[in-house]
Amino acid sequence: MEIKAEIITIGDEILIGQIVDTNSAWMAGKLNIAGITVFQITTISDSREHILNAVGEALGRAEIVLVTGGLGPTSDDVTKKTLAEFFDSKLVLNREVLASVEKRLAVRNIQMTEVIKGQAYVPDKCRAFVNEWGTAPGMWFEKDGKVLVSMPGVPKEMMGIMEKYVLPGLKNKFKLPAIYHSTLLTYGTFEAHLSSLLEDFEKSLPPHIKLAYLPSAGRVRLRLTAKGDSLETLKQQVAELEEEMLKRVGEYVYGRNGDSLEKIVGDLLREKGQTLATAESCTGGMVAHLITSVPGASDYYRGSVISYANEVKEKVLGVRPGTLQTHGAVSRETVEEMAAGARKVLHTDYAVAISGIAGPTGGTPEKPVGTVWIAVASPGKILAEKFIFGFTRSENIERASYTSLNLLRKTLLNEI
Amino acid sequence: MEIKAEIITIGDEILIGQIVDTNSAWMAGKLNIAGITVFQITTISDSREHILNAVGEALGRAEIVLVTGGLGPTSDDVTKKTLAEFFDSKLVLNREVLASVEKRLAVRNIQMTEVIKGQAYVPDKCRAFVNEWGTAPGMWFEKDGKVLVSMPGVPKEMMGIMEKYVLPGLKNKFKLPAIYHSTLLTYGTFEAHLSSLLEDFEKSLPPHIKLAYLPSAGRVRLRLTAKGDSLETLKQQVAELEEEMLKRVGEYVYGRNGDSLEKIVGDLLREKGQTLATAESCTGGMVAHLITSVPGASDYYRGSVISYANEVKEKVLGVRPGTLQTHGAVSRETVEEMAAGARKVLHTDYAVAISGIAGPTGGTPEKPVGTVWIAVASPGKILAEKFIFGFTRSENIERASYTSLNLLRKTLLNEI
Repeated sequence: MEIKAEIITIGDEILIGQIVDTNSAWMAGKLNIAGITVFQITTISDSREHILNAVGEALGRAEIVLVTGGLGPTSDDVTKKTLAEFFDSKLVLNREVLASVEKRLAVRNIQMTEVIKGQAYVPDKCRAFVNEWGTAPGMWFEKDGKVLVSMPGVPKEMMGIMEKYVLPGLKNKFKLPAIYHSTLLTYGTFEAHLSSLLEDFEKSLPPHIKLAYLPSAGRVRLRLTAKGDSLETLKQQVAELEEEMLKRVGEYVYGRNGDSLEKIVGDLLREKGQTLATAESCTGGMVAHLITSVPGASDYYRGSVISYANEVKEKVLGVRPGTLQTHGAVSRETVEEMAAGARKVLHTDYAVAISGIAGPTGGTPEKPVGTVWIAVASPGKILAEKFIFGFTRSENIERASYTSLNLLRKTLLNEI
Repeated sequence: MEIKAEIITIGDEILIGQIVDTNSAWMAGKLNIAGITVFQITTISDSREHILNAVGEALGRAEIVLVTGGLGPTSDDVTKKTLAEFFDSKLVLNREVLASVEKRLAVRNIQMTEVIKGQAYVPDKCRAFVNEWGTAPGMWFEKDGKVLVSMPGVPKEMMGIMEKYVLPGLKNKFKLPAIYHSTLLTYGTFEAHLSSLLEDFEKSLPPHIKLAYLPSAGRVRLRLTAKGDSLETLKQQVAELEEEMLKRVGEYVYGRNGDSLEKIVGDLLREKGQTLATAESCTGGMVAHLITSVPGASDYYRGSVISYANEVKEKVLGVRPGTLQTHGAVSRETVEEMAAGARKVLHTDYAVAISGIAGPTGGTPEKPVGTVWIAVASPGKILAEKFIFGFTRSENIERASYTSLNLLRKTLLNEI
């Protein structure tokens, strides 16, 4: 039997267009992977009547209803007392939640107030989930074999509660079909190109296995989804199909599933016992930020010089003034000297350097906005390559950053 | 009379979590500014029954229903024929739409096919809006004084049709109230604290003006929404109320509406004709990335030294080895020398330095994960402050980055 879920997002800030509802897409993705079909997503206002109606309708259509938002400590958040009313329940002090809130305040040296203490009152007919990422607990209600879970709207709190309590709880409560997803991550080409390379492959897929293309900022994820009875069989089928895919598009594949370029590059460096430095101009620190977002990056990453001003390229990285004058800051020669300089100044085995025109201004007919030079210096050689991305400023910065990580990855694998 | 609207988004790709619904937020924002209250946003699947139900329910609650998506030329898009059924209408060839589609294909040198020609068939009871940005037309239906508009789901097509036809049409058809929003942006304290400082103020608000708290990552936005007859009166009332709010929470307010800390800091520096450098350890380039995400940052930002390794702190920034040995990398002394060093090496008026323990490892009982020292060096003085954030690695990096921008802002305003 298909198990259906609905998502209800409570929040005036979405209805007035102040924030985009990213929670629902995240939740829908997680439910889908668990074998649960999302039937409807509804965004409603923080009002008693609207909540009662929407919850009643959703429980009439689906086995699972996940509600986010409206759990702040202030009086404009009415979700908790409305759900208590719906489930004919009363608010009682939950000691475990109170202890967690008290601990949270103590760490931050904040005084407990009656308003904050209110977070620890939860309906007596629900199971409360302690929120390690905030103060409002998650609440799991059951009625007539159906489940409603209420969670805070702050994304990291919702995600924490979903991963730790809700998804395991749903898998435990409902008999869900076996679903297996596996994703190949590609970089450096377009969806249309991949789809032409995979056209025959896609047509030959059995009906219970589907291929999806998920593009974002230069990356395209290729996800196979298999649905059936036996997880082991699905895994084996998908593994065989992925071998087929690698034969066709392997040159663009940099990893699988949750891998990230920054993590893969870090693992390669750690494995080799080698170190990395970066020298960034147009990317302005995003490459360093990506690399250092990986826990343990200090094992291999020594630092960066963000040389936004040309004087910094000269004085700190040792780029020759003549190079900048003759070839300009966005040139093969400059970016190679930046990479060599970063390797020398920061004493590393490898260095990546980026210089380009992020925009929106600064472009010329020869070097339009989006022109980016990237160099990778290794012990013994320097490679440089030119790219023209040409989207918005933020997109140029992002594309240049990931492309430089991908070039470094290829260099580390001796693929270039 | 309040005019209510609902938004219905049709698309399986949202329900499986493949894409985030950004259209609804954009539409909701536009409707709100026009004085139309968005009552509910509903995302449904591309199926006849679901569309008929959702449209019927929405028209029962609201005067205006805007539908996006499900208008592609392929057979899995059933919106158009389902709406024709709902409005008891039949599909007829629309010459104007056909001419527009033909012109579009000619420019791209694409052959007309029966599938594409299908886009020019529209229900005979609607007004069709030619889509200059794609092939599927917009469709305006009226029934019992209510309006339903169907638009394509491709954002730029939907936006084009909304701006050119739908919003002017709605303003023409309905008598709309004036609505005015204004937001104060705060940093450095919690929603609960702000709410206690504003408790009396909130209670004294007239019924047509509401205050909302919108928290995210250390920031809390305080939004006043006023609804009435005269926009001028509302603006004046909100301005006066904001003055009252500033008296109570002004020390936490860094900007208004769409401002960002990185933009505000940049504007202050440009105004003063002064320059900035950064020296980052635990934030690993995020501060540089934020600063350089603002177009024109090269006017005032010269660069950064990301000194992840202690040797880089010494060799490039000139931190004394004795300082690191005696006080450690995460200390007032080190961060002050980093800031002074960055100012000197990068030749700037101001420098911000950050050193801390982002986690998840590296904490000690005296310096737990989340401990961050931030220094701001200005011409003539250096200020340093310690923070304990203590969330996840990514949150520590984010909080430390924004906090350093806020400290710099206060320094630039001579508030410290």
